[in-house]
Amino acid sequence: MMTPTERLGLDLLVSVDRDGDRSLRVQLEDQLRDGIRRGALHAGTPLPSTRALAGELGVSRGVVVEAYAQLVAEGFLVARPGAVTRVASVARHEPAEPPEERIAPPVRFDFRTEAADLSAFPRRAWLAALRETLRDVPDVGLGYGDRSGAPALRVTLAAYLGRARGVAAEPGNVVVCTGITQAITLLARALHRAGVARVAVEDPGFPLHRMVFAREGLRVVPIPVDAGGLVVEALDHADVGAVLLTPSHQFPLGMALAPERRAALVDWAAAREAWIFEDDYDGEYRFDRDPVGALQALAPARVTYLGSASKTLAPALRVGWMVVAPDLLEAVGEAKVLADSGSPQVDQLALARFIEHGELDRHLRRMRGSFRRRRDLMIATLADELPELKVEGIPAGLHVCGRLPAEVALGPLMAAAWEHGVGLYGFQHGDVARVLLGYANLPEPSVEPAVRALGELVRTAG
Amino acid sequence: MMTPTERLGLDLLVSVDRDGDRSLRVQLEDQLRDGIRRGALHAGTPLPSTRALAGELGVSRGVVVEAYAQLVAEGFLVARPGAVTRVASVARHEPAEPPEERIAPPVRFDFRTEAADLSAFPRRAWLAALRETLRDVPDVGLGYGDRSGAPALRVTLAAYLGRARGVAAEPGNVVVCTGITQAITLLARALHRAGVARVAVEDPGFPLHRMVFAREGLRVVPIPVDAGGLVVEALDHADVGAVLLTPSHQFPLGMALAPERRAALVDWAAAREAWIFEDDYDGEYRFDRDPVGALQALAPARVTYLGSASKTLAPALRVGWMVVAPDLLEAVGEAKVLADSGSPQVDQLALARFIEHGELDRHLRRMRGSFRRRRDLMIATLADELPELKVEGIPAGLHVCGRLPAEVALGPLMAAAWEHGVGLYGFQHGDVARVLLGYANLPEPSVEPAVRALGELVRTAG
Repeated sequence: MMTPTERLGLDLLVSVDRDGDRSLRVQLEDQLRDGIRRGALHAGTPLPSTRALAGELGVSRGVVVEAYAQLVAEGFLVARPGAVTRVASVARHEPAEPPEERIAPPVRFDFRTEAADLSAFPRRAWLAALRETLRDVPDVGLGYGDRSGAPALRVTLAAYLGRARGVAAEPGNVVVCTGITQAITLLARALHRAGVARVAVEDPGFPLHRMVFAREGLRVVPIPVDAGGLVVEALDHADVGAVLLTPSHQFPLGMALAPERRAALVDWAAAREAWIFEDDYDGEYRFDRDPVGALQALAPARVTYLGSASKTLAPALRVGWMVVAPDLLEAVGEAKVLADSGSPQVDQLALARFIEHGELDRHLRRMRGSFRRRRDLMIATLADELPELKVEGIPAGLHVCGRLPAEVALGPLMAAAWEHGVGLYGFQHGDVARVLLGYANLPEPSVEPAVRALGELVRTAG
Repeated sequence: MMTPTERLGLDLLVSVDRDGDRSLRVQLEDQLRDGIRRGALHAGTPLPSTRALAGELGVSRGVVVEAYAQLVAEGFLVARPGAVTRVASVARHEPAEPPEERIAPPVRFDFRTEAADLSAFPRRAWLAALRETLRDVPDVGLGYGDRSGAPALRVTLAAYLGRARGVAAEPGNVVVCTGITQAITLLARALHRAGVARVAVEDPGFPLHRMVFAREGLRVVPIPVDAGGLVVEALDHADVGAVLLTPSHQFPLGMALAPERRAALVDWAAAREAWIFEDDYDGEYRFDRDPVGALQALAPARVTYLGSASKTLAPALRVGWMVVAPDLLEAVGEAKVLADSGSPQVDQLALARFIEHGELDRHLRRMRGSFRRRRDLMIATLADELPELKVEGIPAGLHVCGRLPAEVALGPLMAAAWEHGVGLYGFQHGDVARVLLGYANLPEPSVEPAVRALGELVRTAG
C-alpha cells in the first residue's frame, strides 16, 4: 500500500536536509512552491494531511502546518475548514514569459556616456552602508520622512558639495531627488509658480532635458554654444526667465564655460532676476588641473545646482540632489511632494553613511586615475588611427567629443557600428556630425581595439 | 625637542589599533578627518611629512601616503608639489546645523494611517535580499535599466498580484513606480495624451491625489460616496473620461464597493470608453473573510490597478506598481521616462527576490494576525469607552473610521489630542466630522490606553 506522500509523488519532490542552513519549514515550503510553479503539482491536487506528511518526512507536525499556512497565504495552496488542502489554480495568472528586455544588442565595445563604470561599482561598501542603515535607523525613519530629503543626507551633501565642488550649500537648501531628470521636472514646476514661461537651453544640449521642460508646458529656447560654451550675449534677446546649462563640461561638446562668460551669466541673471540651473552632471572629473568650482557659489541666490550619483556610482541608485536658490525652495519642495512623496529613506541614509565614511571620495580617487588613463589612451589612439576625427573639449568628464569628416554620414556610420558590435553614439548639429566616445564602460584594455574598430568603420563609411 | 607629531598635537589625536577590525590606513584617515571636522585641526595647519608621521605611529610610510591622498581627494587636506600638506579651509561650507526635522512632536499614541507597522519591518530579510542582489546582479544591471521596471520584478509582481489580489497581470503591463502618488502623476499624463480633461474622484477621498490631478492640469470632479461606496450612477452626468477610486476599502470611510456597483462601474467604463483607476492601497488586509479580488480582473482593458509596498512593508522603500490598461501603457511608460528615468534597479531586484523567497507573504501573514487582534481590541474598547463614536466600514485595512457626535468639533479635538500626546487625524465632510483611527503603528498593548485617552478627549470636547 502506498503512503499518501508516495501517491502524490511528494517523496520525489520533497526532501529535508537536517544539516542545511535553512530551517526544515523553509526547505519544505520552497520545494512545494517550486513544485507548483514548475507544474509538477497541478492545480487541484490534494495534499496529504499535515500529520501524514510530517510522518513521511520525519519532521514535527508543526513544521508542515506552518509550511502549508505560508503557502496558503501566498495563494499556492487552498485550505477550507474540514476539507483537504489542495494546490490552488494559480496557473491562470502565472505569466508565461518575461517581457522583452529593452536593452541594446550585445556589443564588443560600448562607447556609451550615460553612466559611471558599472563594473567598478563599490558593491561591498554600498552593502555595508545599507547594512548599517538597516541596523541603526529608528522605526520612524522607515516612514515617508522629510519629502525634501533625509536631514542626515542633506547635512552630508551640503558639506560634500562644499568641499568637492565649491558649492555654497546649507542643508536647508539641499533637496534630494531621484536624479537630474526629476530635478528638471521639479524646477519646471517652480518656474510656472514664479511666472516664467520660457527657458533657455544649450544648443546642442541634452535632448531629454528639453523634452522634460516641453512636457511641463514651458517654451524651450535654444541658445548657441561656441568654443567658450554658452553664448551668454544671446540670452539678452531670448526673453527667457531661466537658463539650464552645463558650465563645467558642456554636454555634449565638452568645453568649459569661459571665465568671463561665467561672470557675464551671473550679471545677466542678477539684472533680469532670472534663474540659472547648473547641471553639474560630471563635474567630479577634471584631469588636467583642479576642477573649477561650481558656478553656483558666485550667486547662490540665482543659481540652482544639480548633481547626481549616476556618473560617480551608478544610475541604478537613482539618487540626485539639488542646491536650490532660496526663492525657489518652497515651490521645488511642494513639487517633490506631488511628484513622488519623497525619495527612498533607506537609500538616502545609506548614501549619507557612504559619504561620511569617505567611501565616495575613495571611489572617485580610484576612478579618476583610471578614467584619466583611458582618456589619454583614447586620445593617443585616435591621433594614430583616426587623425581625421577632430577631438574637441577639455580633459574632463567621461567622454570625448569628436567631429566627423564632412564626407562621413552619421546615420549609416552608427548603423554599421552597431552591426559590427560597436556601441556608438553621435549627433548631427547643423552640417556637422559628431560622435560621443565614452570611456567609463570601456575597460582600459579595450580602448585601443575599440578606437581601431571605429577607425575602420569611419574609413569604410568615408 | 618635540617631534613633529607632538608639535601638532597629533599624538593626542591619532592612535592606531593593530588588533582592530579596520585597516591602519582607515583608522588614520578617520581620526584625521574627525579632527578636522571637530576643529581640533585648524584650516592651514601644516601636517608632518608622511615619513615623520609614519615613524611616530610605527606604521609603514605607504599607510600615511594613502591616508593623506584620500583626505586630499575629499578636500580636507591640500597638497601642493614641493610644499607641506596642510589642512584645507573647508570650514567655509561646513554647515553649522542640521535642518529642522519636519516631523510631528513626540506622541504617546499615534493613530496615523499612512504606513505599515514600521516596528515590524523585516529588516533582516530585506537586507538579505539586498545582499543577494548586490552579489548577483550583472554590471549592466547597475545602469538605468528598463524605465518601466526591471523585468525580473515585473514578472514577480505579475504572478504575485495574480495570486494575492486576483489581478489579471502580464509582466508587460506592469509598470514599476515609486508609489501611488507617482502612479497618479503618470496616469494624469496618459489622460492628457488620450484627450481626457476631466477625472472623477471619490468624495470624501484622499486629498493628495486630487492635488496631483489638479497640478497636472486636469479638472477634478468629486463623486459622492454612500454606504455602498462610490455612487456609480453619478458618473453618468459627470462628463469625465476617467475615475479614481478605492473599491476594496474606501479611503477614508472604509466600506467596500458593493458588488452590483462593481459591475455597473465596469459597464459605464465600457460604454463610455472611460478609464478606471483602482487604488488598492491596503487590499492585502481583510479580516472577516477572503479578500475580494481586484476590480481590474473584471475589465483589464479599462482598469488600471495601483498598489505599493507602503502599507505592507514601509513607505521608506518608495516602491509601487501599476498594472496598466494596454491602451494607456505607452503613454504611462513615456511619462515615467520623463518623470525620473526609471525607478532604482537595486531596490527593484531586491523586492523581486524578497517576494520570490516568500518573505512578503510571510510578513503579511504575521501582520494580518496582529492587525486583526489590534482592530478587534480597538472596536471592543471603543464600544466600552466611546459608544457615542459611530464606527463605520468593513473589517479591513489599517484603520477604523469613526463618526464623531454632532456636538464635538473636530478642530479643537485634534488640537487637544496633539497637545496631550495623542496623534489624531480626522476630516470634516459636510456636517459630519470623523476621526481616522489607524492601528498599524499602535502596538497591541497601546490600543486600550490609546482609545481610553481618546475617550477622555472626546468627552472633554463634547
